Amino acid sequence: MVDRLRGEVRLAVATLRERAPLVHGICGTATQGIVADGLLAAGARPMLTATREEAPTLVTVADALLVNLGSLTSDARSAAIPTVLAAQQYSVPWVLDPVAVGVAPVRTPLARALLAHRPDAVRGNASEIRTLADGSAPATRGRGADSTSAPDRAAEAARRIAAAHGCVVAVSGPVDLVTDGDATVRVANGTPLLTRVSGTGCLLGALTAAMLAAASPSGEEPGEITALGAVVAATALLTVAAERAVGSGPGTFRVGLLDSLAGVSPDQVADGADLAWA
Amino acid sequence: MVDRLRGEVRLAVATLRERAPLVHGICGTATQGIVADGLLAAGARPMLTATREEAPTLVTVADALLVNLGSLTSDARSAAIPTVLAAQQYSVPWVLDPVAVGVAPVRTPLARALLAHRPDAVRGNASEIRTLADGSAPATRGRGADSTSAPDRAAEAARRIAAAHGCVVAVSGPVDLVTDGDATVRVANGTPLLTRVSGTGCLLGALTAAMLAAASPSGEEPGEITALGAVVAATALLTVAAERAVGSGPGTFRVGLLDSLAGVSPDQVADGADLAWA
Amino acid sequence: MVDRLRGEVRLAVATLRERAPLVHGICGTATQGIVADGLLAAGARPMLTATREEAPTLVTVADALLVNLGSLTSDARSAAIPTVLAAQQYSVPWVLDPVAVGVAPVRTPLARALLAHRPDAVRGNASEIRTLADGSAPATRGRGADSTSAPDRAAEAARRIAAAHGCVVAVSGPVDLVTDGDATVRVANGTPLLTRVSGTGCLLGALTAAMLAAASPSGEEPGEITALGAVVAATALLTVAAERAVGSGPGTFRVGLLDSLAGVSPDQVADGADLAWA
Repeated sequence: MVDRLRGEVRLAVATLRERAPLVHGICGTATQGIVADGLLAAGARPMLTATREEAPTLVTVADALLVNLGSLTSDARSAAIPTVLAAQQYSVPWVLDPVAVGVAPVRTPLARALLAHRPDAVRGNASEIRTLADGSAPATRGRGADSTSAPDRAAEAARRIAAAHGCVVAVSGPVDLVTDGDATVRVANGTPLLTRVSGTGCLLGALTAAMLAAASPSGEEPGEITALGAVVAATALLTVAAERAVGSGPGTFRVGLLDSLAGVSPDQVADGADLAWA
Repeated sequence: MVDRLRGEVRLAVATLRERAPLVHGICGTATQGIVADGLLAAGARPMLTATREEAPTLVTVADALLVNLGSLTSDARSAAIPTVLAAQQYSVPWVLDPVAVGVAPVRTPLARALLAHRPDAVRGNASEIRTLADGSAPATRGRGADSTSAPDRAAEAARRIAAAHGCVVAVSGPVDLVTDGDATVRVANGTPLLTRVSGTGCLLGALTAAMLAAASPSGEEPGEITALGAVVAATALLTVAAERAVGSGPGTFRVGLLDSLAGVSPDQVADGADLAWA
Repeated sequence: MVDRLRGEVRLAVATLRERAPLVHGICGTATQGIVADGLLAAGARPMLTATREEAPTLVTVADALLVNLGSLTSDARSAAIPTVLAAQQYSVPWVLDPVAVGVAPVRTPLARALLAHRPDAVRGNASEIRTLADGSAPATRGRGADSTSAPDRAAEAARRIAAAHGCVVAVSGPVDLVTDGDATVRVANGTPLLTRVSGTGCLLGALTAAMLAAASPSGEEPGEITALGAVVAATALLTVAAERAVGSGPGTFRVGLLDSLAGVSPDQVADGADLAWA
C-alpha cells in the first residue's frame, strides 16, 4: 500500500517538473516572497494577484489556486469567494489554507464560507484544523499562525472535515498527517528549522496546489495520481527537501531549502519520504 | 552603571528566547519578509495583519505591537489607531516606527496622532526623530527612509520626545542612541552592511517590541528589566548579531544576520555590546 | 558604435553608485523584497509606497519612478496615474513595467493609459511587449508573468511602441533587446537562473529607473548618457552581475546576485556586457 503511494509521489513530482503549472495565489503579503520563490524553485510558476476585479479572471488561465488567509488584506478578503467560484467554473483545483483561523473576526467566518465551497484540499496546523472542524475558537490564547500542538490530536478533526466536505486535509507538524476522510497517511520528514522560517506553511499550501494541478483530470496522464497522493507528494517534497537543505541557522536554511526544492529529484523525494498509514 | 545595563541586556535576551513573545506588526509590505524572518530567528513569533476589522482583535492575544509606517497601505492607515487603543486596553506594550515621516502627507499627521497615544517606545533614524520632535518637515529634500545624519544631532530631539510622552526613544545610526528622557545610552555596534539590506531598521523596531514584551510587568520575573534596558537590549541584539554575521555583500550578510540572530547567546550580546552613558 | 555604448554603460553604473538615486516604486507586493534589496545592493535607495494619498507627493522628492503592475493592489491601481502626473510635473523620469498585461481586466487598460502618458522607458518580457503593442490579448493562454517567448519576436513590437510614444523599450529574455525606435541593441548576458527567482524582471525595471536618474538632464554631468544607454546599462548591470553570481540553485543564486550587484565595478559591467547592434 505504501509502495503504491510512493509511486504516486514520484509521478506527481515528475509531473510538476514537466508541466510547470501556473499557480494563482491569493496569499498573505508577508509570505508572498517565499511562496513565489518556492514555487519557482520547485518547478511551478506563481501568479500572486488578489483583487476582486482581477483575480476571478486571472484564475481562469491558472492550473491551480491557493487561498491563504495569512495577513489577509481588504483586497484579498473581497477577492476570495469570487475567485473560488471562477476556479470551480473552470475546473481549476484549489487549496484552502486557513491561517490563524479562530480568534480573528474576519477570516474565521470567511474560512468556513470557503470550506462550504468545497476546496480540493485544506492545509493547516493542528490548531487551525481543530478550530475549523469544531466551529469554536481554540481554548488557548496567545498562539500565532504557527502551533506546536501535536498533529495527531487534530487527526480526528481532519478526518471529519475531509468526510464532510469531500476534500483532502493536511495537518502540518513535526509529523504531518494527510487524510481523505477514509485513509490517513503519516509523513514523518522535515526539520525543526522549518518553524524558524516565515511562510514555510504557506509554501506547503502553494506546493499542494501545484501538485493538485499535476493530478488534475485535465492532465494527459491522469488516474495515476489521486488527490490524496498529490497532497502527500507536496508534503513529501517540502519536508524531504528541507532535510536535504544545508543550513546552520534559519537564514542559510531558507536559502538551502530553495536550492533543495529545485535540485531534489522525483526519486529522491519518493525514496526519502517516511510514509506510513495511520 | 553600565554593568547594571549589561545585566538587563543579558536577561532581556534570555527572556525573549524563553517566552517567544507573539509580536503583532502593522508593518510596511516591503519589509514584512525580513521582519517576520528576523523575529522568528531571534526567538519571537510574528503576526502581521493590518486591517481595521482584524488587527484590533488580534492584538489582544499578542505580547507586543509594532506600528511601522513604511509603505503604509490604506488597510494599515485605518487600522493603526484602533489597534493601538486595543493594545493599550489589554496592556500590550507597543512601539512606533515613524518611517519616512516628514514629507508624506498621511503618515506625518498619523505619526503625531500615534505619538499622542503614548507608545512605550519610538524607533527611527535621526531625521525621522528630529522631524517628529520639531513638528516640521526636514529642511533637506531627497532623503528616503534611511538617513546618514549622525544620530547625535537627534539626541536632543529624542530626549524631548521621551520626556514629553513618557516613552523610550531609540535613534538608529552608525552609533545608536537610546533615551528615556533622563538617561541616554550609546550603543556603538553594527556594520555599514546594515544600511545595504532593506528593512533592518523595521526589524529593529520589531525586536524592540519583542523585548518590551520580555520586560512587561505581566512577566514572571519583572522589575529586573526596565523599558530603557529592553530597548537597549533590542539594539544590542541586532547590532551585535550583525557584527557576528558572516557576509561579503548585502545578500550573504542578510542571510548571515538571520543565522546570527538565532545563534547569538544572551552572554554574547551582553558582553559584545559597546555601551556607554551619553 | 558599440564602444560608445560601452562607455555610456561604464559611466551610467559609476554615476548610479555616486548619486545613489532615490527610486520611488509603485510595485507588486510579491516582489517588493527583491526590488528593495536589489536597489540598495546596486547603490540606489528604494522608497516603495503606493497610495493615492501619499505616492504623488513622495515622488516629487524622488530621482526616478517605477510603475510595476505585478500583483496590482487597489492602492497601487488608484495611485498609478496621479503619481505619474506628479513625476512628470517635477521632471522625474519614469519606467512602466506592464506585468502580465493581456488577460487581466484592470492592468491591461491601465497599462495602455500609462503608456499614453509617455514613460521614459518600458520594460517587459516578449509577450507583454507584443500585447502592449498589438492592443490584443496574447493568443496563448496559461502563461504567467514570465514568458519563454524569444525576445526577437517582440523586436518589431518594441520598435513600434518606442517610435509611437518617444520612449526606450526593453524586452527581457535569454537575449535582451533595447530600442529607442531607431537603434536596437542586443544584450546577450545572463543565466537561466534569473527565471527561477521571483522578481528579477521587476528588479530590472527598478534598476532601469535608477539608471534613468543617472542619465537625467538634471544631473551635473549629463549629455554623456542617453536614455538608450541608461536602459542598456541597467540590463547589463543585472545580467552581468547574474553571470558573476555564485549559486548552485535558485536560493544561493538570489543571494549571490545581491552580492554581485553590490560588488561589480563599472568597468566589469561595461567590459563584460555582450553588446551588439541588432
